[in-house]
Amino acid sequence: MKNIILASSSSVHGSGYLEYLEPELKVLFAGVTEILFIPYARPSGISYEEYTEIAAKGFSKLGIDVIGIHEFTNPKSAIENAKAIFVGGGNTFVLVATLYELEIMQDLKSCIESGIPYLGTSAGSNICGMTMQTTNDMPIKMPKSFKTLGVFPFNINAHFIEADKSSTHKGETRETRIKEYHVFNETAVIGLKEGSWLRVLGNTITLDGELEAVLFKKNKSPKRVSPKTNLNH
Amino acid sequence: MKNIILASSSSVHGSGYLEYLEPELKVLFAGVTEILFIPYARPSGISYEEYTEIAAKGFSKLGIDVIGIHEFTNPKSAIENAKAIFVGGGNTFVLVATLYELEIMQDLKSCIESGIPYLGTSAGSNICGMTMQTTNDMPIKMPKSFKTLGVFPFNINAHFIEADKSSTHKGETRETRIKEYHVFNETAVIGLKEGSWLRVLGNTITLDGELEAVLFKKNKSPKRVSPKTNLNH
Repeated sequence: MKNIILASSSSVHGSGYLEYLEPELKVLFAGVTEILFIPYARPSGISYEEYTEIAAKGFSKLGIDVIGIHEFTNPKSAIENAKAIFVGGGNTFVLVATLYELEIMQDLKSCIESGIPYLGTSAGSNICGMTMQTTNDMPIKMPKSFKTLGVFPFNINAHFIEADKSSTHKGETRETRIKEYHVFNETAVIGLKEGSWLRVLGNTITLDGELEAVLFKKNKSPKRVSPKTNLNH
Repeated sequence: MKNIILASSSSVHGSGYLEYLEPELKVLFAGVTEILFIPYARPSGISYEEYTEIAAKGFSKLGIDVIGIHEFTNPKSAIENAKAIFVGGGNTFVLVATLYELEIMQDLKSCIESGIPYLGTSAGSNICGMTMQTTNDMPIKMPKSFKTLGVFPFNINAHFIEADKSSTHKGETRETRIKEYHVFNETAVIGLKEGSWLRVLGNTITLDGELEAVLFKKNKSPKRVSPKTNLNH
């Protein structure tokens, strides 16, 4: 049974790395002593080693060890043998390009579908959707495909933010961008604000955190969704 | 001799479509009676027809006719025979994907290099750089390649905006995104604020408008550039 947390961001304003998620992580990773960390999204271009250190520090409070996938000779078998997985945020193009280059997209999907507990933050959440086509990131690397894990029947827009109505900036709002996406694509999109996460347990998908999310469907008006709403339908 | 204006945006706050650029357009398009408009970037997903109407309205004040490239049976010969070209903003992925699908990227490049006056706004400016990898747009369509026209030895970041230091949002700032770009790529990037444009005349590139631009080079601190600065070096 799928056992997943997909968070919009790894931290929220005024709180440390993963801190706001601690109570949830204790449940998701109950009984887990070691997490396989996938640092490929390289936020701000930091190295795999640096990023894994940050993740390890975040999980040390929970008494859980973190090992970076780059420390294994064979990333495929690292995934196959993982007891828990965490994919951190950064650049989604870089993350997806790397998963395809190493040919481990399918392994990761099988692992998550088998019920191994999975935590994604930001880019690590995006990749659980059907495609990465609603990322906010710059296309700094060309992935083989925009198709992602699809362990979840939506796309995610992480760090979702409502338009600032007082702004004089002419760049597209997040809502306009997602509307443009739906001119060319079908999959529904969940705009997930910082501090929100999706809890996937088997086929049940629940919005959690204190904020509303926004659900975008093709040819429909965006719909505000309250915390604790079941998103299956 | 190349004769190009690359604008960050088609309008600025409090002013109509192309209005702030009018004095410049009179010079760029002096003697021109008809402009070929390329509406492929489809802002907000509007149709080619709707978009061409907007452009036509913008140029009617200058007494210049606008014809959409979609009105021609053969887009290749439409470009070959154009006396002036305008590529409007919208989604850069959709624009680049379409230029590749129709196999007219090279024709457009040759046309611009032959000295046909060219106006780009936003996505239409991005495509003049070496790659589209510093676009702000969502990857709503997969282009064959991120390589673009390269009629200009930089990449552009249109609608450039400085970080709001009072913001509590955790999504990456524009500057952080461009820094991440330079971890994987070499080409320098010009962050062009709304209301700024680049004037390319032969091999001379000048920043124009009233605002500073920001020049990002790999492994260097971002550099503020004043209007009227020559960017060749």
